[in-house]
Amino acid sequence: MSEPTFSAAGRLTDLVCGTREMNAVWSARQIVQSMLDVEAALARASALHGVIPVAAVEAIVAACNADFIDADALMAGAASGGNLAIPLVKQLTAVVKLKDADAAKYVHWGATSQDIIDTGTVLQLRATFDLLEAGLNEACDALALQAQKYRGTPAIGRTWLQQALPITLGLKFAQWLDALIRHRERLAQCRARVLVLQFGGAAGTLASLRDKAPLIAQALADDLKLQLPSLPWHTQRDRIAEAAACFGMLIGTLGKIARDISLQMQTEVGELAEPAAAGKGGSSTMPHKRNPVGCAAVLTAAMRAPNLVAIVFSGMVQEHERALGGWQAEWEALPDLARLTGGALAQITAIVSNIEVNTERLAANLGFTHGLILGEAVMLALGDRIGRLEAHTLVEHASKQAVATGATLYDVLSNDERVTQHLSLVQLQALLDPANYAGQAHAFVDAALLLHRRPSSRSRP
Amino acid sequence: MSEPTFSAAGRLTDLVCGTREMNAVWSARQIVQSMLDVEAALARASALHGVIPVAAVEAIVAACNADFIDADALMAGAASGGNLAIPLVKQLTAVVKLKDADAAKYVHWGATSQDIIDTGTVLQLRATFDLLEAGLNEACDALALQAQKYRGTPAIGRTWLQQALPITLGLKFAQWLDALIRHRERLAQCRARVLVLQFGGAAGTLASLRDKAPLIAQALADDLKLQLPSLPWHTQRDRIAEAAACFGMLIGTLGKIARDISLQMQTEVGELAEPAAAGKGGSSTMPHKRNPVGCAAVLTAAMRAPNLVAIVFSGMVQEHERALGGWQAEWEALPDLARLTGGALAQITAIVSNIEVNTERLAANLGFTHGLILGEAVMLALGDRIGRLEAHTLVEHASKQAVATGATLYDVLSNDERVTQHLSLVQLQALLDPANYAGQAHAFVDAALLLHRRPSSRSRP
Amino acid sequence: MSEPTFSAAGRLTDLVCGTREMNAVWSARQIVQSMLDVEAALARASALHGVIPVAAVEAIVAACNADFIDADALMAGAASGGNLAIPLVKQLTAVVKLKDADAAKYVHWGATSQDIIDTGTVLQLRATFDLLEAGLNEACDALALQAQKYRGTPAIGRTWLQQALPITLGLKFAQWLDALIRHRERLAQCRARVLVLQFGGAAGTLASLRDKAPLIAQALADDLKLQLPSLPWHTQRDRIAEAAACFGMLIGTLGKIARDISLQMQTEVGELAEPAAAGKGGSSTMPHKRNPVGCAAVLTAAMRAPNLVAIVFSGMVQEHERALGGWQAEWEALPDLARLTGGALAQITAIVSNIEVNTERLAANLGFTHGLILGEAVMLALGDRIGRLEAHTLVEHASKQAVATGATLYDVLSNDERVTQHLSLVQLQALLDPANYAGQAHAFVDAALLLHRRPSSRSRP
Amino acid sequence: MSEPTFSAAGRLTDLVCGTREMNAVWSARQIVQSMLDVEAALARASALHGVIPVAAVEAIVAACNADFIDADALMAGAASGGNLAIPLVKQLTAVVKLKDADAAKYVHWGATSQDIIDTGTVLQLRATFDLLEAGLNEACDALALQAQKYRGTPAIGRTWLQQALPITLGLKFAQWLDALIRHRERLAQCRARVLVLQFGGAAGTLASLRDKAPLIAQALADDLKLQLPSLPWHTQRDRIAEAAACFGMLIGTLGKIARDISLQMQTEVGELAEPAAAGKGGSSTMPHKRNPVGCAAVLTAAMRAPNLVAIVFSGMVQEHERALGGWQAEWEALPDLARLTGGALAQITAIVSNIEVNTERLAANLGFTHGLILGEAVMLALGDRIGRLEAHTLVEHASKQAVATGATLYDVLSNDERVTQHLSLVQLQALLDPANYAGQAHAFVDAALLLHRRPSSRSRP
Repeated sequence: MSEPTFSAAGRLTDLVCGTREMNAVWSARQIVQSMLDVEAALARASALHGVIPVAAVEAIVAACNADFIDADALMAGAASGGNLAIPLVKQLTAVVKLKDADAAKYVHWGATSQDIIDTGTVLQLRATFDLLEAGLNEACDALALQAQKYRGTPAIGRTWLQQALPITLGLKFAQWLDALIRHRERLAQCRARVLVLQFGGAAGTLASLRDKAPLIAQALADDLKLQLPSLPWHTQRDRIAEAAACFGMLIGTLGKIARDISLQMQTEVGELAEPAAAGKGGSSTMPHKRNPVGCAAVLTAAMRAPNLVAIVFSGMVQEHERALGGWQAEWEALPDLARLTGGALAQITAIVSNIEVNTERLAANLGFTHGLILGEAVMLALGDRIGRLEAHTLVEHASKQAVATGATLYDVLSNDERVTQHLSLVQLQALLDPANYAGQAHAFVDAALLLHRRPSSRSRP
Repeated sequence: MSEPTFSAAGRLTDLVCGTREMNAVWSARQIVQSMLDVEAALARASALHGVIPVAAVEAIVAACNADFIDADALMAGAASGGNLAIPLVKQLTAVVKLKDADAAKYVHWGATSQDIIDTGTVLQLRATFDLLEAGLNEACDALALQAQKYRGTPAIGRTWLQQALPITLGLKFAQWLDALIRHRERLAQCRARVLVLQFGGAAGTLASLRDKAPLIAQALADDLKLQLPSLPWHTQRDRIAEAAACFGMLIGTLGKIARDISLQMQTEVGELAEPAAAGKGGSSTMPHKRNPVGCAAVLTAAMRAPNLVAIVFSGMVQEHERALGGWQAEWEALPDLARLTGGALAQITAIVSNIEVNTERLAANLGFTHGLILGEAVMLALGDRIGRLEAHTLVEHASKQAVATGATLYDVLSNDERVTQHLSLVQLQALLDPANYAGQAHAFVDAALLLHRRPSSRSRP
Repeated sequence: MSEPTFSAAGRLTDLVCGTREMNAVWSARQIVQSMLDVEAALARASALHGVIPVAAVEAIVAACNADFIDADALMAGAASGGNLAIPLVKQLTAVVKLKDADAAKYVHWGATSQDIIDTGTVLQLRATFDLLEAGLNEACDALALQAQKYRGTPAIGRTWLQQALPITLGLKFAQWLDALIRHRERLAQCRARVLVLQFGGAAGTLASLRDKAPLIAQALADDLKLQLPSLPWHTQRDRIAEAAACFGMLIGTLGKIARDISLQMQTEVGELAEPAAAGKGGSSTMPHKRNPVGCAAVLTAAMRAPNLVAIVFSGMVQEHERALGGWQAEWEALPDLARLTGGALAQITAIVSNIEVNTERLAANLGFTHGLILGEAVMLALGDRIGRLEAHTLVEHASKQAVATGATLYDVLSNDERVTQHLSLVQLQALLDPANYAGQAHAFVDAALLLHRRPSSRSRP
Repeated sequence: MSEPTFSAAGRLTDLVCGTREMNAVWSARQIVQSMLDVEAALARASALHGVIPVAAVEAIVAACNADFIDADALMAGAASGGNLAIPLVKQLTAVVKLKDADAAKYVHWGATSQDIIDTGTVLQLRATFDLLEAGLNEACDALALQAQKYRGTPAIGRTWLQQALPITLGLKFAQWLDALIRHRERLAQCRARVLVLQFGGAAGTLASLRDKAPLIAQALADDLKLQLPSLPWHTQRDRIAEAAACFGMLIGTLGKIARDISLQMQTEVGELAEPAAAGKGGSSTMPHKRNPVGCAAVLTAAMRAPNLVAIVFSGMVQEHERALGGWQAEWEALPDLARLTGGALAQITAIVSNIEVNTERLAANLGFTHGLILGEAVMLALGDRIGRLEAHTLVEHASKQAVATGATLYDVLSNDERVTQHLSLVQLQALLDPANYAGQAHAFVDAALLLHRRPSSRSRP
């Protein structure tokens, strides 16, 4: 396959978020090869049922190789014909003709352009699901490992970007893990609906194949190892929309993870850091900087994905038997989504797998408010003894005093007889230890880990 | 519940696409009542496990009625507090206090605002799923009926907005039906993931409930008949995003149906018409006009939905344990999507159920090209006798002649000996009858109907 | 005007971001009143040129009052007719008839529904521009004041969420101000294009008004103080799209301001705080928390706005002389955008006007890296004396040593003879003072203030 | 510049909507060259003011050529560094070093990555504005020509996809022209705001250039022929958002044109056809088909554009002095928008310039309702004589009779004495001639043409 110049393609910045494997699945070459794979299978299926001569198959199948295709001519032809299949079939026919003039007559028999393009896309989606499922398993494993490792490591929970109450660092990993497990489930359900053949001919009736139509459709599906749907779906795009939505939702969760990590990487917070790598995110003149380069790539993906999904959704409103614009709108958005998903997933897995945890800073941040984040814990304990209302008043007052004087809450409370007559200093210290007020954090971590370990949770065991 | 003035609410145009039932589910009153239902259940669950006095339950539960709530004060409080739950709990507490000052202390025990708001939303989503599932069953039944009725009615298939090949009118209904069946499946799978309790307390650890937390969480879930998730999901919004996506995808399919019907209602096409209704879409000065008012409402929904979904997806990137903007962005978009889905589904069902089919115009349009749309049929039959290539040349030539002279393709072909020596005039007429070249249209209709009749296809048998 | 129940309207959460004035402009009542204002003006203009009897004007104008309109009937009529104007004209005619049966014949003379709805919207947009221009002036004044006040207050500049180099706090305000000045300019240019009459009759030709059409069109424009466009624009929606885009862009800038302020309000950063207000963003049990409630409202607006703009843009692809869905898609999105813009602008103005600046924390954060952020300043000074390369090596080495030992950069450098032989300790201290390395921060603040003070920069002087 | 493989770039389908010139402006090569142009200008400006040695300029400028850049290495470096400038500066430095080791030290002096990337983008935007302005002039000329040519050609006006009242074909062209003239105005205003230098250094203060900063900034702006803004705008993205919005709005109008033309190309309507071109939109087996391939490409662009704009708008909410995701989200969306705009504009210009008008079908469609579309004309004339109300009743009755019997409205009316006693048959025929009921169509065409001819309307005369 000839290689068009850089100037024609122009996605220089695209690899900021992508993986080699996923980019390969959606490369121009693979788009073409997938379509050719469908043409080859069509020849085999048609010959099997006597619609085209068996003798024609070999030449057609041999010609179904992207290496033989002139990409520049393809693009030019696509621009005038309105889709890639028209010029591709033309080139394919010419290639077959070189070897077997008769066989050339049987290329693309009974199919319409959209049959080839859509089924080619489905084949690429199958490879995408495979990669994402493997990637999700890896990501979940990495998260599970960290959730386990930091199961009991106290960390501050934040709401409204403000310190709220203690959690554990493991709980953060567990929450992300829990969400990814649901995405695995969604992808598996979506896969079952999406991986079907598209084969309807010019108006979706397969009329030109006459009574052989059902046989060929089944043989073609079998050959490509796809399900045969109850009917063609040229202008029913819910399957494609669902794939787009699943990708977009997964990116949303990955974006949430990247948002959290990048916030925890802030100079003033310093709890986490992306794994260091040569030339990645560092600055020679500013050695204190550790730029969250991976997180930024994921956040970029998360900013683009919702609107790429919206493009595919907008395209669902298609006209009649084959459409005018809506179908074509999928052509950039769906591959972009697949590649962004693959890239973002790989970035998060890489970050989580080797994330640097600064336990000193985690602890220091827990102490940042001088104990105020644990006022509730003291209030509850005191409430058991003197009633909730009085305890509340007492702790609220102490908290304000601590803020006003710069003292720790312990200092204030341990000097207040109304407290110390009910709680010993040891008890008070324990109550003001964040590790003792993480609530169900441990249990929640365990629940997510349990879910992760269920065999059924692995998308493709 | 007091009724705020029209000037505050201002969605005058909103009902263009909505149903009474779905609008009721997402009405301001129901938003508030759902939250109050959660507060009532929380009181019962907490008392059950001894965290609050059993004596407090009655007063709290009795007060959990939207009739007691001052909506204007609620809105004002929401604006300063940042969410509805804060002022609602304040009002609820005041209402309880009037009856039982002690009980008032136990309102909202252990919960955070988001627990109440999210779980309230889940309750509304349950009602939404119920309505949509019933609506989908009804829509599918209506489509199945029409698919059956018009199973064999010839119609022109159109691609690129151009006449292509014959299909049957039943096939159009069957394609729409086939897509809706998949949406039923998606909704059922989504429902199972979405209908879960939200209960985590201030930082998602339920710390303030200490060792009673798991018991209360389970009791609360049981009381509300929701599943208990492995852990709280305050900032993991994939469940909400999935519901939004399912609604948006369904609207996309409904928009496709509306697009087709409105195109077939064009004055120059005239094949279909929305059912007539007093004052609906007619024009006294232009009696020929039959405005597709229902289709327009659905198309409007389909234009809005993708971006409402994108808002929810954009909101997934949330900060830490509770977020800053992303969560709040769901508050208008999700209800809008639910209402648009309910409304669009009802519109399409109403249109399809009583659609006016103009079989004369269907037939006339099939004859519009004077037989050109059936050139392929003749070519195939002739090809059986004289070879495909020659047949193709012959028919292509005849078609051009027909276009040039204004004659019918039959006229041209029946005067060509190269044709008539192989095909009798009767055979030729049969070949040029659209009813004989609908390919697998009947089989595809049957396949969709079969799928529809499978018990498993009904979302809630 | 009757007041529909809360259950029909259901935007309970809407006021989280809105102003009383802007919400009033887009209230249901004002939507109706604006349309009635157009009907009244149409009656006057038509009578002026003898198309309707002068005697009919009084009764029609008197009836053009939203108080006479039954909102519930309006909504029901809109649902069946497809727009608000149809049932409104019906009600209006009935109201006129009560007083003057003859005058009732002349209601809505020569106009089409869309003329009334669009021109009504333009009147609301005029009020919106007025509010936004006043709001922008106020916001700019507030920002200019703070930019001036904190012109020289050192603050840390952050890139990639990491501390980078010193800036001044005033520069942040000046950057925001500079952007808002451009938005003022855009709004003024947009206003000139948008505030035009819509008047075309059923198919945009004003045919039913025959030769009086141009006169009436001009008189109607004059009466409403709108420009008369070269031709009607029923399906040319670029004007509306531009207004939507201007609103969306302004929200984007306001969102950026809210993002920055909320990040600077983080517990661990603590440089800024939203002005305290009773019941706003505080927490009795967590006195250390100061929730950025105003910022959250603005960030929510900024998350919704891009997709509301996209809805309006999507709607531009309209069919023929009057459209099917695209026009209707504007009806919720445009008012939402206007209200979000008004609300977000008011929130930011309120926050900026009384923002709490914690200069201690600003200074502490500048010292957070123990001088590393000023390595470049030392390197430049040293480079003047010993060459850039050597200086770079030396400072880089010192920085790493500081990081490794926890010492300050001053400690390391002041103990290095290679440094001290070129720079005195006093010089070194000065170089490590953030106030001395703010570059053009002061000049940039001055430039923005100068721009702000230009008379031409005020949108409506 | 080396050429990366097709597999890396993968926008095979992209050229369906693009022009050679616009694609060149946004090609990978030009992205890189624009950045290098900024680096070269920076070297010159810095030397001019003595910040770097004059002797270094030649080697740096000579090296600023994309031919010397290894694209694969660039992409890999961008992925780890987070943007293109980091690896580009590295490669550039290496290239300079080969010729002049000393000069290599002065590459990129004082600038930050974003200065180079943003200013490079601004240079590309300048070329984009140039192309779009020329393209708009051409499109407007083509539309003006057709508006003039078909100024008086009767055509049916359609609302709700239903025949409504007569217009002229010229009016359609004039409406599109009128909208494009406004887009020219918008682009000119946007251009003035957007074409500014980005130059702020690491934190936007130009600190490392010390007192030379203002001089170099001005010299750099002068060298690149850009305006110098009041201050750097690293995280104030309203300028970029405005460019994106202008592109998106223009695409919206082009989409509206494509929607209309494709609807008028429907087999059953047949009023217009895209100009025929070899291999474009035709079908050998279906000679009656003329696929609107150009319109489909424009409609695809119009489906994608709103959400690409939304991506850029979403990206406006950026953090502090340089951002995390929002900036990067522009990198694909902005070029895509520019290319889609250029492509869609060229498509529409090509279609409009040589559009095939079928006047027979225009006339036939005007007669489709047997005169019903002119009932209003008769009613008005009759109303002058017998009163509006009676005339209305009479014509409404006649119209219904015509529909019921299949007669023409003329037949019915000319046999009704109540009509013929007031209107002669000649008068009746004239009233039922669509050419006589086009209202202000001619005047509106003239108004748009006048606007078009105003010198000020040409963006760059």
